[in-house]
Amino acid sequence: MRELEQRIKSDGVVLSGDVLKVDQFLNHQVDPDLMFAIGQRFAHLFADNQITKILTVESSGIAPAVMTGLQLHVPVIFARKHKSLTLTDDLYTADVKSFTKQTQNKITVSKKYISADDHVLIIDDFLANGQAVFGLLEIANQADLKVEGVGIVIEKSFQPGAQKIKDQGIRLESLAKIKSLANGQVTFVTEQHD
Amino acid sequence: MRELEQRIKSDGVVLSGDVLKVDQFLNHQVDPDLMFAIGQRFAHLFADNQITKILTVESSGIAPAVMTGLQLHVPVIFARKHKSLTLTDDLYTADVKSFTKQTQNKITVSKKYISADDHVLIIDDFLANGQAVFGLLEIANQADLKVEGVGIVIEKSFQPGAQKIKDQGIRLESLAKIKSLANGQVTFVTEQHD
Repeated sequence: MRELEQRIKSDGVVLSGDVLKVDQFLNHQVDPDLMFAIGQRFAHLFADNQITKILTVESSGIAPAVMTGLQLHVPVIFARKHKSLTLTDDLYTADVKSFTKQTQNKITVSKKYISADDHVLIIDDFLANGQAVFGLLEIANQADLKVEGVGIVIEKSFQPGAQKIKDQGIRLESLAKIKSLANGQVTFVTEQHD
Repeated sequence: MRELEQRIKSDGVVLSGDVLKVDQFLNHQVDPDLMFAIGQRFAHLFADNQITKILTVESSGIAPAVMTGLQLHVPVIFARKHKSLTLTDDLYTADVKSFTKQTQNKITVSKKYISADDHVLIIDDFLANGQAVFGLLEIANQADLKVEGVGIVIEKSFQPGAQKIKDQGIRLESLAKIKSLANGQVTFVTEQHD
């Protein structure tokens, strides 16, 4: 998605350790018009999949997920992150490790809001090692629902998450694919969606 | 806002201790079409205020805030919650106490994204004791920016937050105002916006 790649080039900041900061438009300050365009793109890509629910994780996944839900007219569920958990009877839970923050969270989704009839699209802002997506896939598996695919705003293609998702036979659509952040430069995988 | 009040009546759940659960459409599962309508309403109410930025707190404020930003075509900043903080040179910070969860958080906003030129609209999902809003107001004060008003999706009018905001001379617009949750029943303040 050219508009997104241009925005990453102009407003993303490459930090040491292969970290790309996009808090100017995606995960602290949010550009709602860009999010709307992102939602349109995901809705277009999954238009034929009879999506009934969108699943994401708080907090940075919410804006692109809600904009996608707005186009597809389906509810969005954001999994909650918890440091620890006691009551879990009415919740699906999965463990999610954050490599950048070196933390371990549990994510939860209420059993009330997903069921085996659902065709789900998983949306998240970033894909690196894939921990958040695999947490959501584990919850989808517990709920026995059909995952139609995964939509990612920014994929770091040089990290293992993308390949691991595809290895499971799951459809992955990433709107910007980063080949490298070497020498402080963003290089995209050259294939273009538009 | 009648559509919102009807949704609260049909899908909200009143728990003991004056807790209203609306995780069916607002803060766990999200109804994007309702959020869009909420964004339209806030945009209409603050159409003459030359809003340049919207400020909210993760996570439940993000959906209504981003939909409002979409209508006003301005960036949305969601303050981050932290249990503890070390590096703060480039951040505005404020303390926020949660009465329901009995926790104390720090919320932060990057100094890069707000400035004294900004006319800000604060948006949040719930107003009870007003802790989150007062945290955001403190950050607005540190950044010396102009707060044009506060937009709340659901106000619990029987708790002190709303009056405290108005006592400071700040404009408050709440789309649903709850007078009472006594006996498990939702009763609204009778004035109607539409």
